[in-house]
Amino acid sequence: MDQRGVILVILFAVFILYIRDQNTYKVKSFSVPALAEPIRFLLSYGNLVFEDQRIQLGEWERLKPFTPYGKEPILEYKGKVAHHSLAICRYLGKKLKLVGENDWDDLEIDAAADTISDLRLEIDQYFYEPDSKIRAQKKEILVKEILPLYIQRLENQIRENKGFLAIGKLTWADLYYAGLYEYLHYMLGFDFTENAPKLRHLKQQVYALPAIKAWIEKRPKNNF
Amino acid sequence: MDQRGVILVILFAVFILYIRDQNTYKVKSFSVPALAEPIRFLLSYGNLVFEDQRIQLGEWERLKPFTPYGKEPILEYKGKVAHHSLAICRYLGKKLKLVGENDWDDLEIDAAADTISDLRLEIDQYFYEPDSKIRAQKKEILVKEILPLYIQRLENQIRENKGFLAIGKLTWADLYYAGLYEYLHYMLGFDFTENAPKLRHLKQQVYALPAIKAWIEKRPKNNF
Repeated sequence: MDQRGVILVILFAVFILYIRDQNTYKVKSFSVPALAEPIRFLLSYGNLVFEDQRIQLGEWERLKPFTPYGKEPILEYKGKVAHHSLAICRYLGKKLKLVGENDWDDLEIDAAADTISDLRLEIDQYFYEPDSKIRAQKKEILVKEILPLYIQRLENQIRENKGFLAIGKLTWADLYYAGLYEYLHYMLGFDFTENAPKLRHLKQQVYALPAIKAWIEKRPKNNF
Repeated sequence: MDQRGVILVILFAVFILYIRDQNTYKVKSFSVPALAEPIRFLLSYGNLVFEDQRIQLGEWERLKPFTPYGKEPILEYKGKVAHHSLAICRYLGKKLKLVGENDWDDLEIDAAADTISDLRLEIDQYFYEPDSKIRAQKKEILVKEILPLYIQRLENQIRENKGFLAIGKLTWADLYYAGLYEYLHYMLGFDFTENAPKLRHLKQQVYALPAIKAWIEKRPKNNF
């Protein structure tokens, strides 16, 4: 091969690498199974190639100004940047046909995912409270009032939906819930599904999906 | 007409009223322009027939246990009940073709609406804080740090999107923002768009849409 041939081969290889890179999803997030984990669950479920880019704590201050609203996780794809874990999960849910058959179905799936997100926000409010006295008060209300209400309603909802959160079949809302489970468990300090057999079973069902099982086995160890 | 004829006419009338009732959207919410107002903006924009059912404060304790998660607003349609204002607005957005042309477009619209919702939650955190000292601290951080960050980024976002929140044209995220504007203004106690010309102009654009203008004129007076 002459010099020109070598240059052409190199250019071609760079082009292929560029195209491959452009078509790879990149998840940027902290190195814990928190808000990004449902995204990684969905990408794994769909066998989509993705780069799992973990932000180290020391890097965050440098990266933060370049994120859309100073928050993680972020999804990059074909040079575009997306934020907001719920919006990203809904997008992947569509790609993977984990959605409904009509707009009302999707409304029910969206509301189910929003309910899980609401529950997360309620737990957040206690967990990130800096004042220890107020934190204890918040935990009391959370554990005695808020959590039982959510669990009771979610158990009913799952019963009415044949073991799933919405429309009687597996949707992205179920993967969103199962992906967020560890974070909720971690913040609460106990397994809230202990007396919630439907929520427990649904989580186990998602964890048992071959692609999710494989992901959990190969992912980096938790770093809470 | 004999007795049988009269009965048939009555039955027919009841049937027609039933069908009409089933096909009417019903918005149940408190009597303030808060989370339900974007829903009413969208229904008005689409000239969809809706019943605007206002919950009086005294009624709420009685109704609350019958709502999906003890929250308002609620949308009823064809005997089905939906909750979560963002999910409802997205559903109406699809009906009214205020969405994108592909899944990535919709991801951007969803993330824009979520950002407005995040801003609302940040303002909520201060507004509903019961301890007056902590409330003052929260307001300080909100007004000096959080709000400027959101405003600066939203101004850029609107500039990049030809005057809208996403994809360079009017979407349901814009109506969501404009519908929520009064609530944000009320909680903050000042007009946060005063030094945010793009946000201000976008709100004015939505308010100037004939269907929105007509709705604002005919709706019940604010009841904050």
